[in-house]
Amino acid sequence: MNVTSATVEEVNAAAESAAAAFYPYSRSAPALRARFLRAIALGIEGLGSTLIECAARETTLAEARLVGERGRTCAQLRMFADIAEANQWIDECIEAGDPSRTPQPKPQIRSRFVPLGPVVVFGASNFPLAFSVAGGDTASALAVGCPVIVKAHSAHPETSSLVGKIVSLAAAECALPKGVFSMLFDAGYEVGVNLVKHPRIMAGAFTGSRSGGVTLWRAAQARAQPIPFFAEMSSVNPIFVFPGAAAARASAIAAGLHASITGSVGQLCTKPGLVFAVDDAATKVWLEALIPLLSRSAPATMLTAAIHSTCQRLLDERARIEGVRSLAQAQAQAQAQVQVHAPAPAGSTHAAAVLQGVDVDTFLRTPALHDEIFGPTSLIVQCSSPQDFLGCARALEGQLTATIWAEPGELKDQDEFLWTLEQRAGRVVFNGFPTGVEVGRATVHGGPFPATTDSRFTSVGTHAFARFIRPVAYQNELS
Amino acid sequence: MNVTSATVEEVNAAAESAAAAFYPYSRSAPALRARFLRAIALGIEGLGSTLIECAARETTLAEARLVGERGRTCAQLRMFADIAEANQWIDECIEAGDPSRTPQPKPQIRSRFVPLGPVVVFGASNFPLAFSVAGGDTASALAVGCPVIVKAHSAHPETSSLVGKIVSLAAAECALPKGVFSMLFDAGYEVGVNLVKHPRIMAGAFTGSRSGGVTLWRAAQARAQPIPFFAEMSSVNPIFVFPGAAAARASAIAAGLHASITGSVGQLCTKPGLVFAVDDAATKVWLEALIPLLSRSAPATMLTAAIHSTCQRLLDERARIEGVRSLAQAQAQAQAQVQVHAPAPAGSTHAAAVLQGVDVDTFLRTPALHDEIFGPTSLIVQCSSPQDFLGCARALEGQLTATIWAEPGELKDQDEFLWTLEQRAGRVVFNGFPTGVEVGRATVHGGPFPATTDSRFTSVGTHAFARFIRPVAYQNELS
Repeated sequence: MNVTSATVEEVNAAAESAAAAFYPYSRSAPALRARFLRAIALGIEGLGSTLIECAARETTLAEARLVGERGRTCAQLRMFADIAEANQWIDECIEAGDPSRTPQPKPQIRSRFVPLGPVVVFGASNFPLAFSVAGGDTASALAVGCPVIVKAHSAHPETSSLVGKIVSLAAAECALPKGVFSMLFDAGYEVGVNLVKHPRIMAGAFTGSRSGGVTLWRAAQARAQPIPFFAEMSSVNPIFVFPGAAAARASAIAAGLHASITGSVGQLCTKPGLVFAVDDAATKVWLEALIPLLSRSAPATMLTAAIHSTCQRLLDERARIEGVRSLAQAQAQAQAQVQVHAPAPAGSTHAAAVLQGVDVDTFLRTPALHDEIFGPTSLIVQCSSPQDFLGCARALEGQLTATIWAEPGELKDQDEFLWTLEQRAGRVVFNGFPTGVEVGRATVHGGPFPATTDSRFTSVGTHAFARFIRPVAYQNELS
Repeated sequence: MNVTSATVEEVNAAAESAAAAFYPYSRSAPALRARFLRAIALGIEGLGSTLIECAARETTLAEARLVGERGRTCAQLRMFADIAEANQWIDECIEAGDPSRTPQPKPQIRSRFVPLGPVVVFGASNFPLAFSVAGGDTASALAVGCPVIVKAHSAHPETSSLVGKIVSLAAAECALPKGVFSMLFDAGYEVGVNLVKHPRIMAGAFTGSRSGGVTLWRAAQARAQPIPFFAEMSSVNPIFVFPGAAAARASAIAAGLHASITGSVGQLCTKPGLVFAVDDAATKVWLEALIPLLSRSAPATMLTAAIHSTCQRLLDERARIEGVRSLAQAQAQAQAQVQVHAPAPAGSTHAAAVLQGVDVDTFLRTPALHDEIFGPTSLIVQCSSPQDFLGCARALEGQLTATIWAEPGELKDQDEFLWTLEQRAGRVVFNGFPTGVEVGRATVHGGPFPATTDSRFTSVGTHAFARFIRPVAYQNELS
């Protein structure tokens, strides 16, 4: 499908239409908004294999993965339908007045939350369903009464069209104003920037690259009236393996790292990109189990040619840094011979799993090694002892996740290290892997910059709607 | 007292010291933080009349007002001490795991809030106690475990020093690390900007002018790692008077407006700067009661020469706009004759109450009339009917407050107008006045830009700490 960028007129029309829909939609009955979200979920399920096949064709993601993602997408829509219906997000609070207080009588103050207004949602390339047209951002904005304009991702336009039509149909079924949902395409970046700059847009949500997220966020802040813009961007998701865990759980660590590094061709925001380990015999055991698993991984096609070429370029740059060693390199094509740093054949977007290694001193003095490489790759940082971990944690930028593998008792003198990870990450994982984000009440999918543009919010889970609401107080009651 | 600006070295030392204090302070016992805040309150009270006399001399605010402000300041400190002690702000949430879930076991996720890090607090000129060194920003940051660096306001340096010493003494009494609190002076703007740009600073809070707030906020966003910066800046606090209320409550409206416009010499962020009224006989009644009250107001000295000259300049500019009429003009000096637009004597910082009037069409086409003038002045906008109110509300920028005077039944067809005010303001007042901010659980002292830089938060009340915390989730338990 050829993507034609929306014109400036189409951007303006979508923004004006969303603004016109905001009053009636935000005043609509909670049960109606719930019905709308449930109708979208039912509609998506009704597309059946058509949707899965289309998404698989456009993204090359495995069908099983897409079926799971569809389940999550529909579960999110129904979760936010329940929240909308129960009016939970309103969080009314009444502070009673006291007419007899001196020197001034105390008025009653009642507070509640209200929606911010039209929200622009940017579809993500790596989750064509769960973080795209009817994904978590759209569901949470619609639940609280914000109209949504989706800027569809050019990597899966047909999937976007299929889902977009379902949302529009559901809106029509519920007799909602037309502007409650619209979708625009863009072959480049202009439509997105123009949407964010449009004075009718009151908030934005984005999941994607650091450069894209920062550009849109800066456009949101440069407006005459700046708006909240929540971008979930870049995370290296460090894993720290303590010696006791390395010794006791070598096979779990190796198998889990393999799955976590290569799942979805490494194209997950929570893929572990750094593994800190002590250079000892126990580490050697799990590393020697991991290396053949990664080396034998089948090559797989990445989401877009741009993601693939960026991944390759960054890996090549990293390989040229003095002190960086290649530990594992899968075949770039199933038929090819194993090569060290095997270049991808021209025109191919096949990515092969790559594991590199570096010593802790080189890591600490080389900021380029701290950056995310989006793809099936990770970097092992060999430390002298767990005492190096604190310095490494301090050197990291903000993260979505940080993971610790440790045996009972190994962390008893590590409080400052634990505290430092809390300061760096939105989710701290113990003896597990960061990929696979649970969608629930306690979910935090956020973190300090550059993981997101505002660490005080989450983009996944029941609190994701908090990005799109603000409190209002009423002094005295309207009689 | 001469103010000497802190050097770059002093800024760096304060930031490093705050960063060093963050780990131990944020890990300190909740009861210790509570004791610290209570010791500050007790210490401020212990300064007795010394503090009040000093603040009165530096600000020219009335002693009764300052005594009230001291009470509020100490009440805020004790309120946040209670919050700290009860660990309320942590808001722990546990989502149980399910090891038997397929295809993947469900891990336990537990979320809680953690402090952001060192916070820079900017003292406000108009609240030398409640929004200054140990004001609400400092109390809420300290309560959740954030070290604080105060940039003292140059308009009340001795008051700041007195309170700053109390905070330092209280920190020493509680054996807290030195960097938990420090204070720097600045004769200009450089120290504040350098503090906000310092990489060790993790958040900022400001109450003051739009230009100052926007400058600091932009500096916070331009950092390599942008940080939350909450600026409470500019608000015109519109009041809409419906005809029934005008007819039924003329004297309450006139007396309340007079008090609200002239209280604290109009130097309150919630002073009503715009009053929308229908041009009818009922309006004439309250207006004719208000005009002599304002005309006879005693002149009073403003907080600083700069605030005074800005107020005079903006009033003069407004007076020259075609269609703007002078309705009331108090004497600039108690001895002087009444003049229309009486100029202040050279060198004086005495402000006289001024009431101007304009018709709704001129108001709507003249953006300059929508801006705040900080001082004892307001603008009456004469409308043809309450049907004009919706258009006026839509034309306004974001506000801290919006007020409606109406009799029962007068608002029954005004839902879209009410909704529009909710969209524009953080607090909607019915049949009251916006000045006088209750400090409690339901307080919202915030609002869309330019009222603040982030309408999702409040700078007053028990939720003010939410500006300085973020959620962290823990996956699995540390065994």
